[in-house]
Parts: sequence; C-alpha cells; structure tokens
Amino acid sequence: MKKQPKFAVLGGGSWGTALVKMLCENLEEVGWYMRNTEALEYLREHGHNPNYLSSVTFNTSRLRLTDCIDEAVSAADILIFAIPSAFLEKELNNLKVSLKDKTIFSAIKGIVPESGKIVGEHFHDLYDIPFKQIGVITGPCHAEEVALERLSYLTIACADKTRAKKVADALSSSYIKTKVSKDIIGTEYAAMLKNIYAIAAGIAHGLGYGDNFQSVLMSNAIREMKRYTKRLYNIDRNINHSAYLGDLLVTGYSTFSRNRMFGNMIGKGYTVKSAMMEMNMVAEGYYALKSAYKIKEGFEKAVKTPIIDAVYRVLYENENPKKVFTELADVIS
Amino acid sequence: MKKQPKFAVLGGGSWGTALVKMLCENLEEVGWYMRNTEALEYLREHGHNPNYLSSVTFNTSRLRLTDCIDEAVSAADILIFAIPSAFLEKELNNLKVSLKDKTIFSAIKGIVPESGKIVGEHFHDLYDIPFKQIGVITGPCHAEEVALERLSYLTIACADKTRAKKVADALSSSYIKTKVSKDIIGTEYAAMLKNIYAIAAGIAHGLGYGDNFQSVLMSNAIREMKRYTKRLYNIDRNINHSAYLGDLLVTGYSTFSRNRMFGNMIGKGYTVKSAMMEMNMVAEGYYALKSAYKIKEGFEKAVKTPIIDAVYRVLYENENPKKVFTELADVIS
Repeated sequence: MKKQPKFAVLGGGSWGTALVKMLCENLEEVGWYMRNTEALEYLREHGHNPNYLSSVTFNTSRLRLTDCIDEAVSAADILIFAIPSAFLEKELNNLKVSLKDKTIFSAIKGIVPESGKIVGEHFHDLYDIPFKQIGVITGPCHAEEVALERLSYLTIACADKTRAKKVADALSSSYIKTKVSKDIIGTEYAAMLKNIYAIAAGIAHGLGYGDNFQSVLMSNAIREMKRYTKRLYNIDRNINHSAYLGDLLVTGYSTFSRNRMFGNMIGKGYTVKSAMMEMNMVAEGYYALKSAYKIKEGFEKAVKTPIIDAVYRVLYENENPKKVFTELADVIS
Repeated sequence: MKKQPKFAVLGGGSWGTALVKMLCENLEEVGWYMRNTEALEYLREHGHNPNYLSSVTFNTSRLRLTDCIDEAVSAADILIFAIPSAFLEKELNNLKVSLKDKTIFSAIKGIVPESGKIVGEHFHDLYDIPFKQIGVITGPCHAEEVALERLSYLTIACADKTRAKKVADALSSSYIKTKVSKDIIGTEYAAMLKNIYAIAAGIAHGLGYGDNFQSVLMSNAIREMKRYTKRLYNIDRNINHSAYLGDLLVTGYSTFSRNRMFGNMIGKGYTVKSAMMEMNMVAEGYYALKSAYKIKEGFEKAVKTPIIDAVYRVLYENENPKKVFTELADVIS
C-alpha cells in the first residue's frame, strides 16, 4: 500500500482551526502547530480551541499538537500555512528544519511585509521551494461557516495537479466541495486584492453610500481584479469563478469582515491609527494595499485600478475619504 | 430653439415614483399616469404618493397627473413604462391613442404573460414599434435609495443612441449617474433573469445555506446569465458591467427583494400558493421563470442553466427544494 502523506496545519487562528477540522474528517492524524502554549494546553485538555471556533470539538487522540514549529514540519509531508502574513517570516526564522522536500500550501491571504511578496512567491524566492511544491487554498469560505458545517467550496491551486488533488481529497467532505486549479498566482492575488475591495466597500458604507452604489463598486472591483491579475500572469482565467468573484463577494458583502469593518470606520471619520486601536486587530487589506499598489506601479504596461488607487489615497496619503470617493464615483460605471 | 421632448411615466408604484422624482430634477413638466384614482387625488392634494416612497415630496405644479392613459400618451413624446409586466397588456388594451410615433422606454423587469416576451419585444412584435424607438432603463437601483438620494447608476439602452442620450440626460442628476448602451436585449433579459436568481438565493437561505454558498451561487448565476444572454443576442457584452452583474448583486444580496423573500419562504417549506398569499404581493421572478425556461427550451443550441432549472423544478414541478438544491450544489462550482 502506498504511504499516505502526512499533513500539518501551522497556525492556531480561526482559519487554521477550520482547516484542521476539515482534515480530521478524512485523516487518522493531523499535525497542528500553534505558538500559543496556553491555547494548546487547553485544546489538549478540553478538545477545543479556546480562542477561535470554540464550538468545534476535536478528537485529540488524532491531533499531533505542538508548539514547536520544527517538530510539526519534521513530521509532515504537506504543510498548510495559516499564519497571518504579518507574522509568517518571524515564524519561519525560528525554523531549523529544511523545507526543501515539503509540499507547502498557503491558506494565508496577504503579502509578507518583509519581502513584499505573496506567500507562494515568498517561499519560492526566499526558501528556494520549486513552484510545483507550492500551492494555495482559497475560498469563498468564512471559517465560522465551516464550524457550522455549512456547505462551502474551496479552490486548491497548484502547478502540480497530483499535489493539488491530494490536498483537495484531504479537505473534501459532506460540507466541503473542492476544485483544483493551476492558477496559483491568480488565486493568491485575488484572495489578497479582495481584502482591499472589502475596505473600499466599508469606506463607502461608512460614508453613507447605499446598496445601489455597493453593487456598482463590486462590479467594478471584479473588472479591476481581472485587469490586475491578467498583468501578473496572463492565463485563460474566468474571473467569475468562485475563487475570484465568489471570494470577492463573500468578503465584500460580509458585515463581519475585519477589512470591511476597518473601512467602515475610516468612512465614518476615524484615522487609520484609531480605527486599528478600536478594532484591536489587524485588517490584512491595509498591509496588502501597500504592496499591491507598489507591485502595480512596477507593471511594464500600466493598469487602471481606480478602486485600489482611491483606497491608497485615503489610507496612505491621508486624503479625505469623502472627496476621494466622490471622485471615484465619477470614474466607475 | 429646438423643442424639448415631453416625458410621461406610466405607473404609480415605487419604481414609477422614483422615475418621476428623477425626471423632476431636470424637466419643467413630467406627465404621470396611474390607475389608482385615490392615490392620484392624494398626490394632487399632499404632494406625495400615499402608497410608495411616501417620503418624496413633489412640486405638483410640475406634474401632469392623470388617471387616463390616453391623455398621458397623447401629451408625451417619450413614454416610460413602469407598470408590472403582469398588468401591462391589460393597460395597453385600454389605449385608444396610437403609439406609432412615440419613443417607448421600459423600466419593467419581467415578461408579459400574454405574449411570453420581454417588454421591448412585446412592443415591437405586437404594437409594430420599430426597435430604434424602443429602449430599456435598468439599474442596479432600489427605488427606496433614489428616494433617499443615495448615489445610483442607471443604464439606458436603445439601438438609437440619440434617444438613449436624451433619456439619460433627463434622468441624470447629482445622485443619478447614467450610462448608455446598445444592448437592449441583453440588459432587459438580465433584469428579468436576476429575479429568478434572487429567488434561488432566497431558497438557499431558507434551506439554511450560508454566505459561503451564497457567493458561489451568485458567481455561478452570473456565468449562467452570460451563457443565456449570449444565445439570445451575441454581441460583445461585458457581463460584469453594472447593468448585468451589478443588477444581479443588488437584488441577490438584498433582504428586501420580494423575489428573494418569496424564495426564502419556499426554502422554509411554504407552498407557492401560501407564500404568495402570505406576502400579499407578486414576485415577478415567479412568472418570469416560466417564460425564461420556455424560451431557453427553444434555443437552437442548448444552454446549461442549472440554477434556472433547479428553481423551475421547485416552483413548477413541485419537487422538494432540499433535494433539488442538494443536486444543484453538486453541479455548480
């Protein structure tokens, strides 16, 4: 019998917790690394994560829990990273074990601040991992709905179809449907860009724009995402597939999205600093925006991104959101 | 000086009321026909429609109010029909004045039951109006947000660009942005199809599916709409423009949409009849569905429409919504 690959999830947040739950539907053993030792002890004792998706109960005999990243990485063939992009490089710096032979899937939506790259490119460029060993897991998928076992769809992207298929099989269940894709660049950038558009949606809401405007904003956002991802990596991509449009919609229309909430506060007149303090958490789109803007500035052929530009002017150039969005409203249609 | 065309709106519902409000921003005189004599008298006396968008105040000296359709039609060059499609033919049957030289714009989203045609085609085929005199006004636009003067975008479609431009100019204001299009077939069918997808969204919600599924459903709906409208009239159409995707989103994500509400009740187990009775109003998508299904059956080359098919099975073939949507969930992605 062929040896089954061993999986480990790295990260103890809500998305990491949801991924472990999905894997536990299929695998005898799932490795799970988290930094938070207290949460880990609690999990060992009570069978659920005290901080995220605490309604989900795990059979701990099937979890290989550890707060040592080396241990998690050594024991697994397929690593799924679900650590916020802002902390990824810090965690990787602690790593003594080689990643060379590992299959690395990113479930992270964002840009690694130290390199200004999306996670797949970061692993490829800084850790010398061949692209065929790198993959991406994208939604549309709120972790909270996985906890409730509400039917959700994931896209598993990897240049190597066999690897994509293995990960897809390990995640599929009665409430998770999966689809494989070759578009690791497009899916990962889309997952990152949608957080910026969710901030835009939030700003518009905070400024008092209604549902009519919101729908125009989203229909412009998907066209902008299409242009942007086409410049990055021009393959035959249907931008209206779930991994792109679906992911944009689930975030842009979610009142629970941290990015949308952050935008909403900005629209209501908070400064970036006070909005962040008030929320007491990180809106990933804020950091992603800086990189997305810079990357686009580097495109050989310029691309029109009025929404990204508008949010950038508000968040990084301290312009008045009302003025900027009045101008934005004139150029979208 | 060139004579300005005279406008009349036909219909006293919320969308008709919103259209009159928009026109009053620009025109000295707006004709307005409604069947309901009591509402008309109230409007004359109090300056607002007692039944719809009652917060909107009109300067009645600029309204040419009438409950006689012949009078309204005679006095105007450009007619904007905002009568529910189910009652349109009945109203037209009362008409003694010729429509031959009129420009006729439809602000109706649906299919005329007597002919099984969308409104533009109905006027063309049954009333011999040349296509260049026929146009369509589509959203995304909730009438309620027009009442609040929240920024909204309209698409004005007509084969004759000059006519489209005239109507667009008459509707544009500080809170209404307009865009002209040549795609009268595509925009009108899109406006009709989106009501069917809103019913689908409602059924899914009623069955307990969450936001993750909803976003996948909407991303499949827009692809289905693209295929359907392409078969009808194959022009270079960006389905992600506001008139198509935007209109789908504003309805599919609106908890106030009658079509979505109707679907929700069906998903929760109401029969079609009891849901209609409970709501005490017409869900246009219910009637549109029958025609949309029939039209598609007549396509020379078959088109995949899993969502329309599923809703049809539930509403017209009395199949169990849970079973049908479980099967639908397997074929969308």
